[in-house]
Amino acid sequence: MRVIGIDPGLRHLGWGVIEAEGSRLRHVANGVCDSGQGELAGRLLSLYDQLTDILHRFQPDLAAVEQTFVNRDGAGTLKLGQARGIALLVPAQFGLEIGEYSPNTVKKTVVGVGHADKRQVDHMVKMQLPGVAISGPDAADALAVAICHAHHLGTQRLRVRA
Amino acid sequence: MRVIGIDPGLRHLGWGVIEAEGSRLRHVANGVCDSGQGELAGRLLSLYDQLTDILHRFQPDLAAVEQTFVNRDGAGTLKLGQARGIALLVPAQFGLEIGEYSPNTVKKTVVGVGHADKRQVDHMVKMQLPGVAISGPDAADALAVAICHAHHLGTQRLRVRA
Repeated sequence: MRVIGIDPGLRHLGWGVIEAEGSRLRHVANGVCDSGQGELAGRLLSLYDQLTDILHRFQPDLAAVEQTFVNRDGAGTLKLGQARGIALLVPAQFGLEIGEYSPNTVKKTVVGVGHADKRQVDHMVKMQLPGVAISGPDAADALAVAICHAHHLGTQRLRVRA
Repeated sequence: MRVIGIDPGLRHLGWGVIEAEGSRLRHVANGVCDSGQGELAGRLLSLYDQLTDILHRFQPDLAAVEQTFVNRDGAGTLKLGQARGIALLVPAQFGLEIGEYSPNTVKKTVVGVGHADKRQVDHMVKMQLPGVAISGPDAADALAVAICHAHHLGTQRLRVRA
């Protein structure tokens, strides 16, 4: 089962693809889509095109997108919302079911505590995906979301069996 | 010159197409895209598909999208942002330049005052597009955005000539 995790952002949108077989995880690819400078609509189009290309290339079976903090400034929330719209649209166009996880759930699942810092997330992602080279903190977050989704699916499957 | 105005919203996305020849305006079509119930990603996909279909059918030359208030609750801003991402993406995919106007600018241009209510906007849209049948308040707002864009383009053209 191949899972793409997405950490949406207008400037940088992190993504990470992993392969999950039972409880075994394997890194496939990760990276960051950069929307460049320019007009907002052009930047959203750029994110859309890059993410569409990634889904074509890596053909994930499932997607998971990080939920967004809304307790920051309104303008920031709006920007993030616009990027998040793209992050949800593209996997939906590929017919993928999309899991959504709060940053705290992701950290709790991957690190064990809800308020882990970036460095701890990065460390645990590397532990769980041996040999991975991570393209920066947004890609690390995206891989963490993918790992989180794989764990939750595994847990669901065990529940269904029991 | 054919202009599409878009009033983005997650539940209801209003749209209106007008034809502008100099200062003469003519109504072409208007309506509301309904995202239905269901999962967020599916609703965004539905808005995307409907809006793409509208642009195929009416082939506008220009687009204008209403800017969004961000002084409401964060969750509301995030929802609106996600829908707005789609409202900006689709015209960008058609290669259209996109004007953005605040609700106050739209009202000032169409009604003459920045704090006009829905009824006044509806009334002035009907005055400027004789014979129009409007599919509800979101479509009226979208037509108002299109009219606003046409006026601003006209003003720019006069400035260029002078």
